[in-house]
Amino acid sequence: MALHCPLFNKNNLLLTLRRYSSAVSNMEQTILLPSLLRDVPSDELDCEAAEETCRDLYSNYVMLKSIRNTVESSLVPLDDHNTKNNAALNKIAEPLLDTDPEALFRFHLRGLFSVMSDLTKKTQNLTDKYMDIIGVAN
Amino acid sequence: MALHCPLFNKNNLLLTLRRYSSAVSNMEQTILLPSLLRDVPSDELDCEAAEETCRDLYSNYVMLKSIRNTVESSLVPLDDHNTKNNAALNKIAEPLLDTDPEALFRFHLRGLFSVMSDLTKKTQNLTDKYMDIIGVAN
Repeated sequence: MALHCPLFNKNNLLLTLRRYSSAVSNMEQTILLPSLLRDVPSDELDCEAAEETCRDLYSNYVMLKSIRNTVESSLVPLDDHNTKNNAALNKIAEPLLDTDPEALFRFHLRGLFSVMSDLTKKTQNLTDKYMDIIGVAN
Repeated sequence: MALHCPLFNKNNLLLTLRRYSSAVSNMEQTILLPSLLRDVPSDELDCEAAEETCRDLYSNYVMLKSIRNTVESSLVPLDDHNTKNNAALNKIAEPLLDTDPEALFRFHLRGLFSVMSDLTKKTQNLTDKYMDIIGVAN
């Protein structure tokens, strides 16, 4: 039974959202001086592809908190600003409109789960990096 | 305040998931003889693009119930069968990996919200169609 219980399953979306929220709370409680993250370059691989969003660890910190607020309110930002990335995403998404709704549902469910798992790791890495900066061993 | 309260906001993801779940419960309670839906063609526009998934209203009925089960468990199907649609979606999704995680998060959140709203309408239309078939006025 335990294997099928949503609360104990690794692939549970709601649990993944809650796990992200806790990771951000932990980050906030640990990072007492966020300004120490300013101008510290992010060395993550994905930064190469999206330079404008991860110039330094401080902007990552702000982004992770902003996403947490959206997750906790569960409000969907329908009037997104038309940034370069959004325009690119909308172009990619065009053929999705012709897809059957069940496949589309699974695609977005998996996608949301996957990006939340990545963001949780990113939050934990940022927290660890701050500990390094202030010279506290993990 | 009411405008910002998640419970009363139209764009709330969790509320949209719950609304879908209720629509499917209502469909199940109304459609006492699902077999009457067999061989009744679905006249929805999206069927043209995805013939294999909506051959008749009965297959739509089964699909809507199956999605409801996934929604209620909130378990993410990671080991999806590699159908033609999934392969096509994965191909579309490749460039997404290079996108910054905040844009990707918003893309999947909006996508899930949008597909759930469409599926809720589809569920209500199917329920109405059944009422027409058995000759009960809505």
